[in-house]
Amino acid sequence: MPYVNIQVTKEGGERGNGPTNEQKAALIAGVTELLQKVLDKKPSTTFVVIDEVPLENWGIGGLPVTEYRDLNSSAQE
Amino acid sequence: MPYVNIQVTKEGGERGNGPTNEQKAALIAGVTELLQKVLDKKPSTTFVVIDEVPLENWGIGGLPVTEYRDLNSSAQE
Amino acid sequence: MPYVNIQVTKEGGERGNGPTNEQKAALIAGVTELLQKVLDKKPSTTFVVIDEVPLENWGIGGLPVTEYRDLNSSAQE
Amino acid sequence: MPYVNIQVTKEGGERGNGPTNEQKAALIAGVTELLQKVLDKKPSTTFVVIDEVPLENWGIGGLPVTEYRDLNSSAQE
Amino acid sequence: MPYVNIQVTKEGGERGNGPTNEQKAALIAGVTELLQKVLDKKPSTTFVVIDEVPLENWGIGGLPVTEYRDLNSSAQE
Amino acid sequence: MPYVNIQVTKEGGERGNGPTNEQKAALIAGVTELLQKVLDKKPSTTFVVIDEVPLENWGIGGLPVTEYRDLNSSAQE
Repeated sequence: MPYVNIQVTKEGGERGNGPTNEQKAALIAGVTELLQKVLDKKPSTTFVVIDEVPLENWGIGGLPVTEYRDLNSSAQE
Repeated sequence: MPYVNIQVTKEGGERGNGPTNEQKAALIAGVTELLQKVLDKKPSTTFVVIDEVPLENWGIGGLPVTEYRDLNSSAQE
Repeated sequence: MPYVNIQVTKEGGERGNGPTNEQKAALIAGVTELLQKVLDKKPSTTFVVIDEVPLENWGIGGLPVTEYRDLNSSAQE
Repeated sequence: MPYVNIQVTKEGGERGNGPTNEQKAALIAGVTELLQKVLDKKPSTTFVVIDEVPLENWGIGGLPVTEYRDLNSSAQE
Repeated sequence: MPYVNIQVTKEGGERGNGPTNEQKAALIAGVTELLQKVLDKKPSTTFVVIDEVPLENWGIGGLPVTEYRDLNSSAQE
Repeated sequence: MPYVNIQVTKEGGERGNGPTNEQKAALIAGVTELLQKVLDKKPSTTFVVIDEVPLENWGIGGLPVTEYRDLNSSAQE
């Protein structure tokens, strides 16, 4: 009976304000399937909780993610 | 000095948008009392943090909870 | 379908190495009951996960808990 | 740059003491791939942390999982 | 490659609705530096996630934090 | 009254099995000080919990960290 917590930055999606409901459903389905395939866990007792974190609340490389990306001129991470 | 994190779906309550402040206070009081009774933990250093998770961000049975309930025509879980 | 995470220091119990199985069962039963009473949540989809944290890994007041207690000559917290 | 935390009961695997390293690697690969496919997240900044929880520390239905399974004579969940 | 989660009450800051972006950046920079200094962890793989918790969702002493402070007429904690 | 959770791989330290007690104390002191400096949080109600995660339970780049490092012949991360 696994519990999975997925934390992602709140961005992207159709309106730029986070994953769409379809994307969330795909994450939930995919993780649940993976746990069934790898560890034989029953989907009916597998919980998946998605947390969407505002960009200014996520840090990497000692910087808020937006500044970090500017410095590294990298694509979405 | 326990730390307790309670995650529930953001629904119910008077306005349908999550537990009321009275319900939250009841959870905080109840958990703190339980830890004092069972493990003799001091309330003054017991933290309780309640997270309210949007319905579309919570999965069970490989589905977002709303779809899962529709399929199982079950009451609120 | 709530998820509750209880974090306590790994101490106490019969052998001093953490809560006994009976105490853990009491925490699980108590929290599940509380969520049913306050928010009408179904026990069959309520998860409780207990984490026992080594004393040297828990800090309060800027100190590992053992040093903190020595300084405050307080009882178990 | 997602962070994913997978919590499972510490059981199963070759020796009955939790998922094997191969199973853990399969979880890590599968979740990372899923996040890349669904949300276009870069694997190089995707963290996956697996927590193995002792059976007596996991509750469902108001009972420690072992007792819960005995009562429900269900297969591994 | 550490992951750090900082949970604070959503208050303070210029508008009283939580830490400012400057304060969040200072937390991210400070924690990342600390992990590099103490454990030689690379900043490029250090994640920091800040959670801002509504006051009514945080309990201490068996009470929601606002009531707790009223009773203890203490300053901001 | 902040709660901070620091997750690091269980390695390094004198015996190679994780941070020493001195290093843990330095993390606890440093984070508590930072929260006092940046947000004026009282140390007496600041909790710090350190989780040490076995190497095979931590994934990055779709691989367990040990394999990831071998491929990237990078130093400790």
